[in-house]
Amino acid sequence: MTDQWQLDPDRAFPADPTTRELARTIYQHAADLPLVSMHGHVDVDLFAANKPFGDPAELLITPDHYLVRMLVSQGYRHAELGVPYRESANDTDDDTGEVAVPVERDPRAIWRRFCANWHLFRGTPTRYWLEHELAEIFGLPEAPSAQNADALYDQLTDTLARDDFRPLALLDRMNVQILATTDSALADLSTHARLAEQLGTDRIVPTFRPDSLVHVGHPGWPDEIQQLATVSDVDTGHYHGFLAALRQRRRAFRAAGARATDHGHLSADTTPLADADAERIYRSALTGEVQESEAAAFAAHMLFQMAEMSAEDGLVMQLHPGVLRNHSSTVYRSHGPDRGFDIPVGVEFTRNLRPLLDRFGLSSRFRCILFTTDETVYSRELAPLAGAYPSVRLGAPWWFLDSPEQMRRFRESAVETAGFYNTSGFVDDTRAFASIPARHDLSRRIDAGYLGRLVAEGRLSMDEALDTMVDLSHRLALTAYAAPAD
Amino acid sequence: MTDQWQLDPDRAFPADPTTRELARTIYQHAADLPLVSMHGHVDVDLFAANKPFGDPAELLITPDHYLVRMLVSQGYRHAELGVPYRESANDTDDDTGEVAVPVERDPRAIWRRFCANWHLFRGTPTRYWLEHELAEIFGLPEAPSAQNADALYDQLTDTLARDDFRPLALLDRMNVQILATTDSALADLSTHARLAEQLGTDRIVPTFRPDSLVHVGHPGWPDEIQQLATVSDVDTGHYHGFLAALRQRRRAFRAAGARATDHGHLSADTTPLADADAERIYRSALTGEVQESEAAAFAAHMLFQMAEMSAEDGLVMQLHPGVLRNHSSTVYRSHGPDRGFDIPVGVEFTRNLRPLLDRFGLSSRFRCILFTTDETVYSRELAPLAGAYPSVRLGAPWWFLDSPEQMRRFRESAVETAGFYNTSGFVDDTRAFASIPARHDLSRRIDAGYLGRLVAEGRLSMDEALDTMVDLSHRLALTAYAAPAD
Amino acid sequence: MTDQWQLDPDRAFPADPTTRELARTIYQHAADLPLVSMHGHVDVDLFAANKPFGDPAELLITPDHYLVRMLVSQGYRHAELGVPYRESANDTDDDTGEVAVPVERDPRAIWRRFCANWHLFRGTPTRYWLEHELAEIFGLPEAPSAQNADALYDQLTDTLARDDFRPLALLDRMNVQILATTDSALADLSTHARLAEQLGTDRIVPTFRPDSLVHVGHPGWPDEIQQLATVSDVDTGHYHGFLAALRQRRRAFRAAGARATDHGHLSADTTPLADADAERIYRSALTGEVQESEAAAFAAHMLFQMAEMSAEDGLVMQLHPGVLRNHSSTVYRSHGPDRGFDIPVGVEFTRNLRPLLDRFGLSSRFRCILFTTDETVYSRELAPLAGAYPSVRLGAPWWFLDSPEQMRRFRESAVETAGFYNTSGFVDDTRAFASIPARHDLSRRIDAGYLGRLVAEGRLSMDEALDTMVDLSHRLALTAYAAPAD
Repeated sequence: MTDQWQLDPDRAFPADPTTRELARTIYQHAADLPLVSMHGHVDVDLFAANKPFGDPAELLITPDHYLVRMLVSQGYRHAELGVPYRESANDTDDDTGEVAVPVERDPRAIWRRFCANWHLFRGTPTRYWLEHELAEIFGLPEAPSAQNADALYDQLTDTLARDDFRPLALLDRMNVQILATTDSALADLSTHARLAEQLGTDRIVPTFRPDSLVHVGHPGWPDEIQQLATVSDVDTGHYHGFLAALRQRRRAFRAAGARATDHGHLSADTTPLADADAERIYRSALTGEVQESEAAAFAAHMLFQMAEMSAEDGLVMQLHPGVLRNHSSTVYRSHGPDRGFDIPVGVEFTRNLRPLLDRFGLSSRFRCILFTTDETVYSRELAPLAGAYPSVRLGAPWWFLDSPEQMRRFRESAVETAGFYNTSGFVDDTRAFASIPARHDLSRRIDAGYLGRLVAEGRLSMDEALDTMVDLSHRLALTAYAAPAD
Repeated sequence: MTDQWQLDPDRAFPADPTTRELARTIYQHAADLPLVSMHGHVDVDLFAANKPFGDPAELLITPDHYLVRMLVSQGYRHAELGVPYRESANDTDDDTGEVAVPVERDPRAIWRRFCANWHLFRGTPTRYWLEHELAEIFGLPEAPSAQNADALYDQLTDTLARDDFRPLALLDRMNVQILATTDSALADLSTHARLAEQLGTDRIVPTFRPDSLVHVGHPGWPDEIQQLATVSDVDTGHYHGFLAALRQRRRAFRAAGARATDHGHLSADTTPLADADAERIYRSALTGEVQESEAAAFAAHMLFQMAEMSAEDGLVMQLHPGVLRNHSSTVYRSHGPDRGFDIPVGVEFTRNLRPLLDRFGLSSRFRCILFTTDETVYSRELAPLAGAYPSVRLGAPWWFLDSPEQMRRFRESAVETAGFYNTSGFVDDTRAFASIPARHDLSRRIDAGYLGRLVAEGRLSMDEALDTMVDLSHRLALTAYAAPAD
Repeated sequence: MTDQWQLDPDRAFPADPTTRELARTIYQHAADLPLVSMHGHVDVDLFAANKPFGDPAELLITPDHYLVRMLVSQGYRHAELGVPYRESANDTDDDTGEVAVPVERDPRAIWRRFCANWHLFRGTPTRYWLEHELAEIFGLPEAPSAQNADALYDQLTDTLARDDFRPLALLDRMNVQILATTDSALADLSTHARLAEQLGTDRIVPTFRPDSLVHVGHPGWPDEIQQLATVSDVDTGHYHGFLAALRQRRRAFRAAGARATDHGHLSADTTPLADADAERIYRSALTGEVQESEAAAFAAHMLFQMAEMSAEDGLVMQLHPGVLRNHSSTVYRSHGPDRGFDIPVGVEFTRNLRPLLDRFGLSSRFRCILFTTDETVYSRELAPLAGAYPSVRLGAPWWFLDSPEQMRRFRESAVETAGFYNTSGFVDDTRAFASIPARHDLSRRIDAGYLGRLVAEGRLSMDEALDTMVDLSHRLALTAYAAPAD
C-alpha cells in the first residue's frame, strides 16, 4: 500500500485544456462554500444519539441500495450482503424456487464481497462517491480490492471508533450549514426540538412527508389515520377532520423549523375531486373497501390540497413522481422496501400539473420544486413550466440522474429554456451521511465544467460564470427553500 | 462605456482547438450567404407601412414571449412589462387572488426592468440573440445592466428614428433573400400583392395557415366560417362547400406567391373520417354543439384533407404538433394568447402520421415538413420517417429547441438516420424581425461546429463539409420550399 | 485514382488530443481480438454453398435496407435499385397513383445510381461501414462517385470472383470466432449440422426465432402451425401441443448449438394469460377468427412462456420490441418486408416486463437481453432494470441506434446506472456479411473513446480502462451468450 490515496484534483472536469482550466478556476471559487442540504434522508436519531458509527459494512454497504442492487444484479443475494429478512418472510425459499440463503452476520465477510467486486462500479457515480468518501473522509490509502479488503476493514474500524468521527463532529467537519431530514407526517418532532436547543433552529430541520397518509388503500392506512388523530389531537373519522389534522401537523413541522414538504407519487396527477367524492373515497378507505382507481384519484386530489396548504403556510412543496416502487414482489416480500428494486416509469407533467398550476402557479405565496427520474421531461416539460410560472423551480437531477453524465445533460437540457435562476440548487437526497460532501463536490465540478464550457464558447463572461457558480452551489438552495415568512 | 461592444468571433463554436479551427473555416464559407426565411411570423403590415419602429420596449420586450415569460417566471407581472389586459379581463384581480397591477405605460420603466435582470438570461438563446442584435444591428456599446439602462435606451431611441432602420431598409441590410410570413387563411392578401409589385414576387411571400378554421368548436368558429364564405365567395353552409372554399383560398395564396401551408395541432393524428362523419361533425359545429372528441377527430381528418390538397396544388405542408396552448387559463383570460404559457407535451408521429403517409407519402407531388418541440422523437420517429418516405423532410429545431445545445443535439440525433439531405434547412420562426440574422447566424455556427467535429473525427472530408455547409445554410431551404410547379 | 484509399486511423475517436491519445491506446489493446457475433442475420446457406458473391449491386445495395431506403427517401423507386416486385403485386401502378417502374436488371446501372448519390450518406453509419468495407475488405482505391462508378464496379467484380473472397474464406479473414444466425423455429437445421461437422460446433450456430408462430392471426399462421407439427412430430391441434412442439424445437436448436432465442414484438408486454384463455385464443386462431386485441394478448402471454422455457433449457432470451413493421402498406404490397419502412415507436419496459421479471428475474437459471430502438428508455428503464435483476443484461444499441453518436449516448446513458458488467457486448445484427468487421470496429472505437474520456476525466484508471475494453470487445458477449449448462 502507498501512504496516501491521491484523488485526481481535476476529476470530473472536461478534458479539453481550455475548458478544464476555466472549470478549475470556477470550481475553486465555490469549493469551500458550506453545504446546504435541503433534501436528505439521514435519520435524525443519528445526531440525537451521536454515537460512533458501527462497522464498515453497516455504515457503507448494507443500507446503501445503490451498492446492494449492483452486487445483486451480478448474482449476490441480498442476505449475503447483510440485508435482513422481514419477519413475515418465509426464510426457506422464494418465488424463484431458489433456496434462501442465511443472512450474513460477519461484517468482514460482507466487506470482502464488496472489495472483490470493486470493478462492478466502474463508470458509476457510486464509484466516484466512494472514492471521495474513503480517501478524503476516512483517509484510506488506496482503492478497495480483494487483496487489501482486510487491511482496509481494520483501518476503517479504527477510524470509526474515534470521537471526531461521531455524527455531529462529522457534520462540522463536512462543512454542512443546514441539513433537512425527511420525516413521517406522524413524527413527534421532539428529537428535532432537542437538537434545535443544542445547535440552533436552522441547522437540522425536519421535512413534512405525508405520502403514506394520502395514499389510501394500503393495509396499514387505517392504523396510520388513527395515529394521525392521536398526534394531532384532531378527529380523523371523516375527511374534513383528516384535512384539519394535516394542517395541524404542518403547523407543528413549521414550528419545528421545517422549510418544505416532500411528495413521492407514481403519477404527477393533481386533479382535485369534488368535496363529496373526496369524502366518499375517504370513508370507503376507512372501511378498507377502496378501489385502486379511487385511491389514485384521491392521491391526485391530495396533491392539490397540499398545494393549497402550502399557499397558506408557506412550506415549499417538493414533488418527485415517476418511480414504480418494489418492482420485484419477491424482493419486497423477503426484504421490504428500498432494496434497489424501485424502477422509473415515464412521467407526464404538462397536463398533470395543470389543475394545480392553473390555481396556484402564479401566486407569490406558493412555491413548488419539481423532480424527475425521466430525463426526457427536462427540455420538453419541466424547463418550459419553470421558465413561465413564478411558483415553479426545477429540482436537481434526482436519484438515478444524480451522476456526472446526467447532471451535465440536465444543464444542457434545462438551462436554455428555464435559465439558471429557475433551478433550485443541488440536493444530495441521501441516507448515506458520509457521502454528502462527495455528492455536493461532484455537482459543483459538473456545474463548473458546464459554466467553463459556456465561457470557452463565448456564451458567458468569466465574471458571470463565477457569480453563477456561487448561486448554483449555495445561494439558490437557500433561496428556494427559504423559511416561510410569518 | 467602451466605444464598441465586441462579440467573440468564435462564439458558439466547440472549445477543442482542432474542431474550432475547422468550424471557423466552415462557418466563414457560409457566413455571407443570403438568409432564406421560409417560416416566420413577422406581420406583413410592418413592411407595407415601412414606418420607423417604436420605442425599445415595444420593439424588443413586450411582444417577445421568450423575454416576457422569463421575467414573469421570476415574479414580474405581465402588466409591469407593458403587456395589455384583454378588454374582457377583470382588471381588479385574478384567480390567484392577487390584485392586478396597472399596465406600465412608460417604456423606459419596462426597459429598466429588463436591463436590471439581464442575468436571468445567462445560458439562454435569448441572451445570444439579444447580444447579436444589440451589438451588431443596433450598435450598442455594451451589455445591458441596471447602471446603463437609461443610456442604452436613449441610444436605441435615436437609432430607431433613422430612415435606414425602417423595416425595408433592414430587410436589405440583414441580407434576407426571401421572407415568408404566416397568414390567416382568411387574409385578403392585398398587402402581399402591393409588396410584390414593389419588391418582386419572391421576396415577401404569404403562408397559408388554416388552424382556426379546421379546429371546430371554439367560440369564434361559426363567425370565421362566415368570413371564409365571404372571402372565398363559396357557400360554407355545408362540409363540401367548406372544402371548396379552402381550395379557393389555397389557390389565392398560391397566386400570391405562397410556397407552403402551416399547421399547428395538439396531436399529429391524421386519421381521415368517412365523408358522412365529417359532414355530420361540421354540421354540429355550425350549431355550436360539437363534442371535444369530435372536434379532435375533425382536426385529424382535416390534416389528411390538407395533405390531399397539397398533393394537388403543390403547396408544401408544414406540421408542428405537440404544444398545449394557454396552459394557464388565468394568463389567457387576462392577457390572451402567446404570452409564454404554451407548454409542450409528448408527441407521437409514427402511428399518427401513418394514414397520411400511407396515402401520400410516396407521391412525388407531395411534400411535408415535420417539426417538434419533443426532442425524443428525432431519433426514434422523425429521422426514420424522413429517411424512408420521399415526401418527408425534417424541419429545423423549433421554438424551445431553437438553441445551441438543442440544435447540436438535433444534428447528433437526426443526421445518422435521416442524412443531411432529408432535412429542410433553418427556419427562424420569429415575430422579432430584428432577431432574424442572429438566429440564422447561431444556426450556422452550430452546424459549422457539428461538421467540424465530423471532419475532426475522420467521418467527413473538408471538401464535403464545405459543400454540406452551403446546403444547410442556403440550398436546402430553397429546395424544400420550392415554388409549386405549374 | 490514387493507388490506395487510406482511411483515417483515428476515425471515430474524440477530437480532444488528450482523449484521442488515450482512446488510441485503449482501442489498440482490443483491435485484434476475434469477433464474437452472437446476433446476426446472415443466411446460413451462404456458408453451406460457399459460392462466390454475385455482382456488386447484389452484394452491397439491393438487399441492404439502410442503403435502399436512403435512396428511396430522395426519390428513387425501389425497382430502380433492383428490388423485385412481389408476385402478388400489381405491376402497373400503386396507391400513390404513380406508374410503377420496371425492375432494373442491369447491376451496373444500380451501382451507378448508388455512386452518384454517395453524398446522401454523409454523416450516417452506412457511410462509415461502406468506407471500411470498400477500402479494407475489397481494396477499392477511393470513395465512390459518379465519375469512378464504372471503374469501381469492374474492380469489385474481379475481386468477388476470387476464391479467397468466398464466404468461408472471408469468415476466417474477418477474424470471426463465432457467428450466430437467426432461424425460423421451423428450420430443419441440417445445414447447421453439416457446417458443424466441417467447422466444429461453436463456429456457426443457429438462433431460435419463433415470432411468426407466436403472433397468431396473420394469414400464413395456420399453415405454419401445420409445418410446426410436421417438423416437431407433435400434434399442434391444441394449445398444449403447441407448447410441447415449441419445446421440442428448442431442444433441437440447443442440440444444434444454439445459445439463444430471439423475439421481435411490437410491445414488451409479458402478461401471462390464464391457461383457459390461451387455449381459447389458440383455438380461435386456428379457425382464423381471432381479434387483434386477442392476438396481442397471446403474443404477450407467449413471451412469458418463452421465459419459462428459457429458465428450463438455458437458452438466452433476446427481446427487441418497439418497431412498427411495414409502415407503408404500399411498399409492403409491392415489395414485401424489410425494405426500409419499419419505423420505431415509443416502448415501455418497466410495467410491461414486470410479470416476467417478477417470476423469473431473480433466477440464476434465466437470462434475458433487452434491446430497444427508443433511446429514451436506456437511462429511465433499461439501466435500472439491468442494474437490479441478476437475469437481465442490456443489449447493444440496435438497428437505428447502431451509429457513432448513438453508441456514445448509449454508454453515457446506461453505464452510470447499469455499470459495464450488466451489458452484453456488441452485436452486429446484420444481413450484410461483409460489413461485420466494420461494425465491430466502429463499436470498439466508440467504446475506446468513452473509456478514454473516463480516464481523461479522472473517473477511471488506465489499467481499468484496458481491462474493461477487452470485456466490452470480447468477453462480455461470450459470457452473456454462454452455451447452456447441461
